[in-house]
Amino acid sequence: MQALHIIKIGGNVIDNSENLHRFLKDFTALDGYKILVHGGGKVATQISESMGIEAKLVDGRRITDIDTLRIVTMVYGGLINKNVVAQLQRYGTNAIGLTGADGDFIRAKKRPVKTIDYGFAGDLFEGSINPDNISKLLDSGFTPVFCALTHDGDGQLLNTNADTIASALAVALSKSYETTLVYCFEKKGVLQDIDDEDSLIREINPERYEKLKTDEIIHSGMLPKMDNAFTAISFGVKAVIIGHSDDLGQLKNKAGFGTRLSK
Amino acid sequence: MQALHIIKIGGNVIDNSENLHRFLKDFTALDGYKILVHGGGKVATQISESMGIEAKLVDGRRITDIDTLRIVTMVYGGLINKNVVAQLQRYGTNAIGLTGADGDFIRAKKRPVKTIDYGFAGDLFEGSINPDNISKLLDSGFTPVFCALTHDGDGQLLNTNADTIASALAVALSKSYETTLVYCFEKKGVLQDIDDEDSLIREINPERYEKLKTDEIIHSGMLPKMDNAFTAISFGVKAVIIGHSDDLGQLKNKAGFGTRLSK
Repeated sequence: MQALHIIKIGGNVIDNSENLHRFLKDFTALDGYKILVHGGGKVATQISESMGIEAKLVDGRRITDIDTLRIVTMVYGGLINKNVVAQLQRYGTNAIGLTGADGDFIRAKKRPVKTIDYGFAGDLFEGSINPDNISKLLDSGFTPVFCALTHDGDGQLLNTNADTIASALAVALSKSYETTLVYCFEKKGVLQDIDDEDSLIREINPERYEKLKTDEIIHSGMLPKMDNAFTAISFGVKAVIIGHSDDLGQLKNKAGFGTRLSK
Repeated sequence: MQALHIIKIGGNVIDNSENLHRFLKDFTALDGYKILVHGGGKVATQISESMGIEAKLVDGRRITDIDTLRIVTMVYGGLINKNVVAQLQRYGTNAIGLTGADGDFIRAKKRPVKTIDYGFAGDLFEGSINPDNISKLLDSGFTPVFCALTHDGDGQLLNTNADTIASALAVALSKSYETTLVYCFEKKGVLQDIDDEDSLIREINPERYEKLKTDEIIHSGMLPKMDNAFTAISFGVKAVIIGHSDDLGQLKNKAGFGTRLSK
């Protein structure tokens, strides 16, 4: 099977022009099929504020009301996505910038209202991803660049978590490609000691993961990320790698990049 | 050769939800390969104003300064484009929303500064369009939806006239497809009497065009549009049709839609 890298970046790359350019060059240098998934960044907040639209929070959770959906459609789907594409073209990656509505690639369901109405937040479901349509782009030599927007198939765009999109893409495409899912964030990977960037753990398999949890090396915020990663692996993803966006160049050189989770 | 329709819509469709939905249903009902090209609309101006950014005009000409480029990237490339795509998906067209940067489909050159600095305005040139890359999408069953943005290949997005994009796409793709270019606007077509919508001229060939010019039936604003249309035809486009967006359904039924310009 053809190798495929699905790489997710967040605000720490998007918001810093120098980091972004370094990352996009390293991304371009990666051989084989690849997909980029990007989250938002501070620019969405800045533009909301300049338009006098306040972030809506209920119990500390962000709500995608209609104004917020318009902002994220403009900023994620337009401003960030198309500038990333233009830069990737500059560096030699034949990128195509997409939401889940494009090509019917990713459908979601509007989150049901229980105690909180999250507005136009979309949750993925079994069959959300259309791997055949995505393969057509990959096999034509294009590199898809997805932002954190999906659609419901009935004309409604929805705001969906970028980590979740990356993971769902990896699972759905692992039937056709040898898929590695890479999460770039602001740490070198999973650290033995959170205050010591030199304490990187290079490899974690499910047994070691259980031990790291028991020893309380991995806890709180990292647990859901790690659980999701091992779920993706159990569904066929070859490996999930968590590392710093600045170090992506080392992934190509196999010199060791971040923490590699695998079976 | 496979038939291809390239259809351009402007603000009169984009700005009116009812018109837009009717148009997108009619567009979906059209058989064969197709490409949609859309301009802006009032929403770009509204969003600029809500952000406190004023339109820059020099000698009555709109200037794309950096703030305006950000707005059009958000509004054309994000808000309008992705909502059109989501609606097309709803009606059954497998649309993909694009700028010229995506897939390296359309390159432009930043307009040189002579007496006026137009800012980030991009002019097309011989070889601007990459027909091979666009064919990959069409042959994969996707329907490209282009907004009025291009790139220079060096990381810069540029604002380019949507009529010009539609015409350049038609010429470049006429080597591979039997291409019809359709301009939708707010009149039924070229009228013998501009105040009488019933005076539609159904067909114009170059000889008749010369006569209509001599008789001053066609003048002022229509001349550059018509000249461009006949230039596109001389470069291989099968026909250029000018008609009202509300009537697009009649194009499918061959019942006669707008004014048909051909050799």
